[in-house]
Amino acid sequence: MPIGKTITLAHGAGGRASDELIREIILPALGGDPRSCLPDSVVLSNLGERLAFTTDSYTVSPLFFPGGNIGKLAVYGTVNDLAMSGAEPLLISLGLILEEGLEIDLLRRIIEEIGEATKETKIRVVTGDTKVVGRGAVDKIFVNTSGIGALPAFIGRIAPNQARPGDVALVSGALGDHGIAVMAAREKLSFTSNIKSDCAPLHTLVATLLRAAPHTRCLRDPTRGGAAATLNEIARASRVGIELDENAIPVHREVMGLAELLGLDPLFLANEGKLIAVVPEEEAEAALAALREHHLGFESNIIGKVTSDHPASVVIKTTMRTHRVVEYPAGELLPRIC
Amino acid sequence: MPIGKTITLAHGAGGRASDELIREIILPALGGDPRSCLPDSVVLSNLGERLAFTTDSYTVSPLFFPGGNIGKLAVYGTVNDLAMSGAEPLLISLGLILEEGLEIDLLRRIIEEIGEATKETKIRVVTGDTKVVGRGAVDKIFVNTSGIGALPAFIGRIAPNQARPGDVALVSGALGDHGIAVMAAREKLSFTSNIKSDCAPLHTLVATLLRAAPHTRCLRDPTRGGAAATLNEIARASRVGIELDENAIPVHREVMGLAELLGLDPLFLANEGKLIAVVPEEEAEAALAALREHHLGFESNIIGKVTSDHPASVVIKTTMRTHRVVEYPAGELLPRIC
Repeated sequence: MPIGKTITLAHGAGGRASDELIREIILPALGGDPRSCLPDSVVLSNLGERLAFTTDSYTVSPLFFPGGNIGKLAVYGTVNDLAMSGAEPLLISLGLILEEGLEIDLLRRIIEEIGEATKETKIRVVTGDTKVVGRGAVDKIFVNTSGIGALPAFIGRIAPNQARPGDVALVSGALGDHGIAVMAAREKLSFTSNIKSDCAPLHTLVATLLRAAPHTRCLRDPTRGGAAATLNEIARASRVGIELDENAIPVHREVMGLAELLGLDPLFLANEGKLIAVVPEEEAEAALAALREHHLGFESNIIGKVTSDHPASVVIKTTMRTHRVVEYPAGELLPRIC
Repeated sequence: MPIGKTITLAHGAGGRASDELIREIILPALGGDPRSCLPDSVVLSNLGERLAFTTDSYTVSPLFFPGGNIGKLAVYGTVNDLAMSGAEPLLISLGLILEEGLEIDLLRRIIEEIGEATKETKIRVVTGDTKVVGRGAVDKIFVNTSGIGALPAFIGRIAPNQARPGDVALVSGALGDHGIAVMAAREKLSFTSNIKSDCAPLHTLVATLLRAAPHTRCLRDPTRGGAAATLNEIARASRVGIELDENAIPVHREVMGLAELLGLDPLFLANEGKLIAVVPEEEAEAALAALREHHLGFESNIIGKVTSDHPASVVIKTTMRTHRVVEYPAGELLPRIC
């Protein structure tokens, strides 16, 4: 039976059509053997003493945008959550929720993007699940990936509550590209055609950083809520203040221009290929040099320092030499950003 | 700031409102400390040599039905997928996709059901993710859970391709309750009020079975596609035939009645608290006795045998002494059954 051009409810029924969908579309695009299967549950051996475990659902709209798509996001996002624990990404699960009527060609393109992203990051899809819901019960396709990674023995505790006064905060590149790229794609703002999502897997950048700064205290990727949310979380969890230097925060000129036009602050825009690190002062220069040598970190910068003043809040020294508080984002800039 | 009565896009934005939702609704319902958090990624130590890993998304409609709800399903379903590998369930992730406008009280009830189900099964929610999408982009709430379990050292390979001619097939109770209960709740068929979903966690039943039948070849829970899909998968994967005895297949009278009325075969109806086991003939009686002693297995029965005849297909001896083929389900009986 040919697979047809659109998803039907039968593709989620757990019978012959489900089986065909997995064998003809999903497994080949993932680079797997179509005679094998993607089991409900898989047995894994000898993963290591300490593992990291994470989950994320992806609902981004539109599905394809300059610089990325929901497939890449679903792999890179979960790779990045593992990497932020200091873990090496190993395995990933793939949960698909499909709308009846979804074009098979669109699904195939998305799964091919997932397949390429898993090859690039050397993470293996080992278990999966596909549900189909009636028209209108979901917007085209949502993807969940959960990931397992292994922690190297030498890694200490990296967590948002580990920052200490005197530490230094770094960012691995320019902020806000993903937020502006998705917004522009959704609103069809043609004049922003140069801005691409920064969507990228950060595990090798993290490995590079940790070799240079083995006492790294905090690592986070500033996605939803942007750097403002990430830095506030660190300040709250560690009960420290964070002081940023506005001039030191890298933002691409086009992003800054559009953000000003729209009344947005790049610190609040989502990123999908940047990390924020807090490291001890004595490792800061080595950390910066290591990040800048990596192709994903060449625009890295030291953006601020951790203080014992004004605990649990983030302030920024503006170009006018005044200080203002960087609020913990309260509302929603842009839904379905990831 | 009070949490309000309905979900807003801000609850998914990764900032203050997301944080409040997690601390005020999700963590307390899960029995967690609201001063803690449900991290993007968690580090785990010493889980064991061999792990099982699984994922499932839950889209059932209606959200509450006789005998169960989406919260219980999301925990039990993933516990059961782990149990079918022979694993002891340890840890679970919780990915929520919420529709803008969802009532907070409904969300709280669902998370409380998840919390109770995790307590009952002693599985721990260790990482989570919450997305909110605009009205109409998802039907109220979809839940993804991914699970990690540990395999006892003595367990051999349990997989759909391990059945051999001479083996015996067992079912742990009456078939079709979940399918009929959800259908009745959705269609508001009041005359079916006695039928409840069999929704239950099967890990202790599996542990009981494996002690009695340590050479168990295959274990599956017949969910979507019912026993027909499960048995056909085993027959295909093992390249064996399976012969069922119609008189031996347990089905509750009300389920049989309604299935006949609707022209449905209970073998094709979904279950959420039953397992099908294939065991060597010499362990079959011990397996049956062990299953029947367990409160979730008192209606267990031997339903058929594995043959070298007609490989990759399932046949049934009817009460009329004729044989008919049990097809691999091709279409969709009932979408959003789990």
